[in-house]
Amino acid sequence: MASLPSPEEDSQKLKKAFIGLGTDEDAIIEILGHRDVNQRKKIRETYHQLYNETLVDGLAKEISGDFGKAVILWTYDPCERDARLANEALKSKKRGIKHLEIIVEMSCASSPQHLVAVRKAYCALFDSSLEEDILDSVPMPLRKILVGLGTSYRYDKEMVDKDVANLEANRLHEAIETKELAHDDVVYILSTRNFYQLRATFERYKEKHGNPIDEDIMKSGKGDLESLLKMIILCIDSPEKHFAEVVGTAIVGLGTDEDSLTRAIISRAEIDMMKVKSEYLNIYKSNLDDAVIGDTSVEYRKFLVTLLGGKI
Amino acid sequence: MASLPSPEEDSQKLKKAFIGLGTDEDAIIEILGHRDVNQRKKIRETYHQLYNETLVDGLAKEISGDFGKAVILWTYDPCERDARLANEALKSKKRGIKHLEIIVEMSCASSPQHLVAVRKAYCALFDSSLEEDILDSVPMPLRKILVGLGTSYRYDKEMVDKDVANLEANRLHEAIETKELAHDDVVYILSTRNFYQLRATFERYKEKHGNPIDEDIMKSGKGDLESLLKMIILCIDSPEKHFAEVVGTAIVGLGTDEDSLTRAIISRAEIDMMKVKSEYLNIYKSNLDDAVIGDTSVEYRKFLVTLLGGKI
Repeated sequence: MASLPSPEEDSQKLKKAFIGLGTDEDAIIEILGHRDVNQRKKIRETYHQLYNETLVDGLAKEISGDFGKAVILWTYDPCERDARLANEALKSKKRGIKHLEIIVEMSCASSPQHLVAVRKAYCALFDSSLEEDILDSVPMPLRKILVGLGTSYRYDKEMVDKDVANLEANRLHEAIETKELAHDDVVYILSTRNFYQLRATFERYKEKHGNPIDEDIMKSGKGDLESLLKMIILCIDSPEKHFAEVVGTAIVGLGTDEDSLTRAIISRAEIDMMKVKSEYLNIYKSNLDDAVIGDTSVEYRKFLVTLLGGKI
Repeated sequence: MASLPSPEEDSQKLKKAFIGLGTDEDAIIEILGHRDVNQRKKIRETYHQLYNETLVDGLAKEISGDFGKAVILWTYDPCERDARLANEALKSKKRGIKHLEIIVEMSCASSPQHLVAVRKAYCALFDSSLEEDILDSVPMPLRKILVGLGTSYRYDKEMVDKDVANLEANRLHEAIETKELAHDDVVYILSTRNFYQLRATFERYKEKHGNPIDEDIMKSGKGDLESLLKMIILCIDSPEKHFAEVVGTAIVGLGTDEDSLTRAIISRAEIDMMKVKSEYLNIYKSNLDDAVIGDTSVEYRKFLVTLLGGKI
């Protein structure tokens, strides 16, 4: 394997790709698409020193559309990326819960350290905290659940208490039966317990009450609250399945939801993409890479395929 | 001013103070009592490398009682110190709210960064998160308020929205009037707004409704909930006044509450002790240093006076 170019060389090549007639998109993909999170950080720092503008500003002047958005999201530090995505979600006028997925993902499918770093980035980038903006823009009872999740800092080692799993499986069952899905206890369980403990609680729920908990929730109602809880449970129980479904939903059917597709691939490319691909195959009986190729075009396609580890 | 001894020299002197017949308490006070948070960190690291035991373990074998406790709390990293104090508070069988003061202080009288660092330290030291232990050991409705505070990450720049201050002063007034002091809105206001905003809200409350908000709360009831809210408001509004009162309460009357006295002096020695002293003078018409000298003895007294910047 050839040795990696230095951050200086990468920055110079990027600058070269920006200037002159037209932009050399292939060079941008070739460089940034093959650098990991730490390497991209060094390139951002070096580029800024060399050219007195941020790399993101440099990119934003040259590339746009879905390709531009994807490259820029990939270029940000992951905490800044998620803080910006969360802010965009909270400031959008969209209804429903689909656009709030990012907040569930960063609190239920990421490390506690990542979530705290996103909250710090959020305060540094915007004039308010993440939780203030949730309170401002999300109606009750979704608000209560998202504030709980968004302020969580879960214990991050594998620690399961079977008695707690049993007690809390019962408490969740009772809340579903009595249709008190946003009860304080439900919020506390979902937002303070560690992921291993919660998976054990969901497992215990199924053993004891017969159905997976998300199915029982969806049987109890079809509103935003039920869908949000289902999303949360899936993110905690199997992040790879959640992201496979995000990709699937973005691609399947008429038109493509590029924003969701980009978010899923960019957030998981360096975390668990192999698992996401395998879940995708499992659910959709087709190859995630092929599906992405079939539903995207030109540079956007090339860039996503590069992140997926493929050649085009 | 003489140049500061190196961490190696300090560690060697400390080790020397520990060995032989009796312990040289004066040397311990002389060294640790005159080192700031970063210097103590280097001494901890160096001592550990040199002697293959932690400095805290070294101290714990040699000194005990109020003096030992105080020196050890001062030696810990402040995040670890507060995590341990919070854990001790939550595991104690005490009733009421006095022992929960540490949780209010670290969330309402410290920086948001400090609180997050305490939560990280808590997860690293114990088998659960701070918020899980609050849920386990604090009854409703105090639980709800402390979980809100304990999971906060407030925006930390000066940013005040007068409309928000007005609206939320009214909302708090309504909650007091209807005796719904643990309403979600109250918890959200106190646990997500930045300190500057909250001070403006309390100011607006007084302008519009005639009394300081903490007085109105205490008029509405005399239970733990009211006292907790008063403590929170005071910590946010004027940390120096809160800590002056902690010292005052610990000293005044029969017997001394050494744990509270130690906590107050150790937590604020490097933050705002001058302000605490001035508030103390204001409230008790006497000198904080003199009061501490009058109520403590031997090494414990010497150590506290050293931290207060005095000579004895």
